[in-house]
Amino acid sequence: MSVIELPESTRRRFVQLLQLLKGWPNPKITSVAISESTGWSRSLIRHDLWLIQFNKGIKNGYSVSELSDAIKTALGIKTCDLSQNNLSEEAELKSKEQVEVLQKNVCIAGLGRLGAALLDNGLTEDSPFTIKAGFDSNVNRVEILRSTFPLYPASEMDYVVKKEKINYAILAVADKDAQNMTNRLIKAGINGIVNMTNVILKVPQGVKVENLSIINALNLVI
Amino acid sequence: MSVIELPESTRRRFVQLLQLLKGWPNPKITSVAISESTGWSRSLIRHDLWLIQFNKGIKNGYSVSELSDAIKTALGIKTCDLSQNNLSEEAELKSKEQVEVLQKNVCIAGLGRLGAALLDNGLTEDSPFTIKAGFDSNVNRVEILRSTFPLYPASEMDYVVKKEKINYAILAVADKDAQNMTNRLIKAGINGIVNMTNVILKVPQGVKVENLSIINALNLVI
Repeated sequence: MSVIELPESTRRRFVQLLQLLKGWPNPKITSVAISESTGWSRSLIRHDLWLIQFNKGIKNGYSVSELSDAIKTALGIKTCDLSQNNLSEEAELKSKEQVEVLQKNVCIAGLGRLGAALLDNGLTEDSPFTIKAGFDSNVNRVEILRSTFPLYPASEMDYVVKKEKINYAILAVADKDAQNMTNRLIKAGINGIVNMTNVILKVPQGVKVENLSIINALNLVI
Repeated sequence: MSVIELPESTRRRFVQLLQLLKGWPNPKITSVAISESTGWSRSLIRHDLWLIQFNKGIKNGYSVSELSDAIKTALGIKTCDLSQNNLSEEAELKSKEQVEVLQKNVCIAGLGRLGAALLDNGLTEDSPFTIKAGFDSNVNRVEILRSTFPLYPASEMDYVVKKEKINYAILAVADKDAQNMTNRLIKAGINGIVNMTNVILKVPQGVKVENLSIINALNLVI
């Protein structure tokens, strides 16, 4: 649901750039500094910023906060910041509503060793994401594990995903259960999946998948 | 160390394709089937295979095992399979040596909740990777955790990485320690890092990094 339809490669760079800006120690950043940290050419950086019509302060560096905001808006993580514009009460209310809509609710599907490692470790702290639920087919696991958010048997997925307005899932089941669990998640209403299994998932159009298989990543750093 | 210098995007598709082939139930696979599972166009698939000069059996589908072998060879995961060629003893010995060289040794740096989740769960089973060591700055953790491979205090990294011929690392430390640990890994001889932190790492040329940040991945499925 990006505001602007960005090329996939630009989106990936923006997500990386956001992380860089988050840890940046100064209020300004130059394209030279971005280039040194990321390895992207300066013309590529300018091209990306041109796509979101961000052309402020090219001479003495970009404002880190302005650039972050512009990228978040372009990625659909945040609405335009209207706070400076002396909003009418009505507009302010509307803006708050929008922010609420943009809060992203996530669930974890599969609470084996990897999935369990994602419980209450501040994973989504300081991000627009909130983990609302964890699911596992093994009822024992659901009962034993401690977590800062509620855990449910997978049989309650349909109900909980709708009730908690969850749109995104982190898939951390065993490879053999990956496609089956994916089908259930999509049926329940999930339309974005971070896939930590080694399986290539079949999903209908409109559902986004991001593959985080460690083995695949190892194959790419050889 | 790929045999052929492939474009980054082709490498990524090949790594995905390998996973698809691994789970494929039939001995043959058509480009139509690949296209349906992955979403890539048939001409893109043919283009990738043309790059590695794989043009066998275009009419009635590709042999899954031949295609797997060709991709593994291209990615540098495996040497050419010489076993069918009635090797002389000498050649067979040499081929075994090569396979050994291509065995990839990996370490895990950081044994907090996420790093610990990667211990003894068969993560690298059925892959060319072997986890040889785990490191943590917290000596307590190293002593308490159970693992199928040895764990060491980070102070022994230099020695262990060289002794065990480890080239690759999975970085699972806290964000604040990410760059510091990366510097130490590279100094010890690591030249490929799977980065599970949210930090953009600065690495010298020749060191490959693959980012597996869950937050970044969530940002990409919005």
